[in-house]
Amino acid sequence: MSEITLDDISGAHERIRGRIHHTPVLTSRRMDELSGGRLFFKCENFQKTGSFKARGAMNAVLSLADAEAARGVATHSSGNHAAALAWAAGLRGIPAFVVMPRTVSRVKLASVERLGGRVVLCEPNHRAREEAAEKVVRETGATLIHPFNNQRVIAGQGTVALELLGEVPDLDIIVCPVGGGGLLAGSSVVARALRPGIKVFAGEPEGAADTSLSFSSGVRQPVEHPSSIADGLLALVGDLTFPVIRRNVDGIATVSDAAIEAAMRRIWEILKIAVEPSGAVAYAAIAEGKVAASGRRVGIVLSGGNVELGALSGSK
Amino acid sequence: MSEITLDDISGAHERIRGRIHHTPVLTSRRMDELSGGRLFFKCENFQKTGSFKARGAMNAVLSLADAEAARGVATHSSGNHAAALAWAAGLRGIPAFVVMPRTVSRVKLASVERLGGRVVLCEPNHRAREEAAEKVVRETGATLIHPFNNQRVIAGQGTVALELLGEVPDLDIIVCPVGGGGLLAGSSVVARALRPGIKVFAGEPEGAADTSLSFSSGVRQPVEHPSSIADGLLALVGDLTFPVIRRNVDGIATVSDAAIEAAMRRIWEILKIAVEPSGAVAYAAIAEGKVAASGRRVGIVLSGGNVELGALSGSK
Repeated sequence: MSEITLDDISGAHERIRGRIHHTPVLTSRRMDELSGGRLFFKCENFQKTGSFKARGAMNAVLSLADAEAARGVATHSSGNHAAALAWAAGLRGIPAFVVMPRTVSRVKLASVERLGGRVVLCEPNHRAREEAAEKVVRETGATLIHPFNNQRVIAGQGTVALELLGEVPDLDIIVCPVGGGGLLAGSSVVARALRPGIKVFAGEPEGAADTSLSFSSGVRQPVEHPSSIADGLLALVGDLTFPVIRRNVDGIATVSDAAIEAAMRRIWEILKIAVEPSGAVAYAAIAEGKVAASGRRVGIVLSGGNVELGALSGSK
Repeated sequence: MSEITLDDISGAHERIRGRIHHTPVLTSRRMDELSGGRLFFKCENFQKTGSFKARGAMNAVLSLADAEAARGVATHSSGNHAAALAWAAGLRGIPAFVVMPRTVSRVKLASVERLGGRVVLCEPNHRAREEAAEKVVRETGATLIHPFNNQRVIAGQGTVALELLGEVPDLDIIVCPVGGGGLLAGSSVVARALRPGIKVFAGEPEGAADTSLSFSSGVRQPVEHPSSIADGLLALVGDLTFPVIRRNVDGIATVSDAAIEAAMRRIWEILKIAVEPSGAVAYAAIAEGKVAASGRRVGIVLSGGNVELGALSGSK
């Protein structure tokens, strides 16, 4: 399969732009003072379904031929990709089968169902989920849409950087979070093509630093028992995304859960917006000084905002 | 003193517009579904210093003659007005003296100091604050800028409705929070002048329902020991604001602290933005059905976003 190009991503943008939000880019003098640079926050927390995953899912769904689409789509994600796929399928009027472990929270299940997804419960282990997904595909003829290891999905996610660089063309640095790598791979292709001298960095949770490890060694490799509050970034980087990342990305910065939570709080307190832990990881890399922002113009992708609000402290 | 007019508010807008943010108006299909109406959220949580108070403070500061301004401004608020006044004074290059009780939180104190305010600590009671403020004014010649019972401040706050109706002219209803009444009074004048048939409502905390009580009885009267998580709305409605409110406003809806907290959560989870308890009160009136939104186009002022984030629940 040929590697993804800027044309693929521009094509994806043409395909999905009428359906997704062109999300705002926020700036803040206070955030600039704290970093010493000029920060441009691309707010995918305001995206349809609350994360950038709407882009890749919509591109994948709209790319299906009619006969294929009619049989529906399927996934065994239970996170933002599941909600995004249910939403995208609903807009095309086709079924989305979402395999979820029977231990999934009521909130996540209700969110997918509200968007029209057909939830298929299975035992809570990886093998059971894959088998359940295979069974759904076999029985319905639905197309499995992988959350990141899929060229249409990667092309859709790359439209984040396309919009960001369209609005702020003279960035010195762009920082994305990395989990499976769809967003990072797609965005890195756009950044390299539109602005060859740009530096592309990723933020990754310390407790799920497989991309960092793989990037250093040159060989894609998992970590044992990945764990982080950034629960959208636990997946092993994909075999389609890793080679793209390895070629285009300048470095992977790992950040602790404490740094991720501090980044969320600062984004809330200064930018006044809600980001989920995974969505705060790129900014955490800046806030921790793992990516040097001083004197630079830095684009930061806030990738999603789907987090429940815990106890509120007073404003005293 | 003559009562405030649309011209005063338009004049205030001309004066301050280069210094404040023209804040966005957010909409959400999900919020519309939940209410049965079309909701337009005016996001003053994104305003300079995190609340609409920047408008009134800036108008008051810019309205001073040079000689008067040179002696500075003063207040004994310790909330959003204090931060707003410190900020506005800083932009004009004049001192802002802010009297605060010595029990004030480090966060609030640091916020005012960071903006250049000169903090004067006093004993934590109302009388001590007033005396300390009088002393500052006597010694420095600074002008006391009341947080709401001041025509320039009321005119500045009214620019919220001026921007909202400029952007969404065909509203059926506008809803503001009410504490001292500056925002509500100013906004009600704009709404009546630009769109005579509009309904103007306020949301007020049940635990500090002096405006509701005064509105019903026709006589301005305090409640004993006002208390609410909406700590920006505890003040007794002003003697300048109350007559304006009584003439222009259609009703005051009271909401419980539980309803205010639920409104904050829903705004976070659906709109993905941070609002403080006081900032969520107008929406709480809608969410609770105290102001009927079904089939109507409703402008809702989210007045501020200065709240610390408590413990976060996971996104599971």
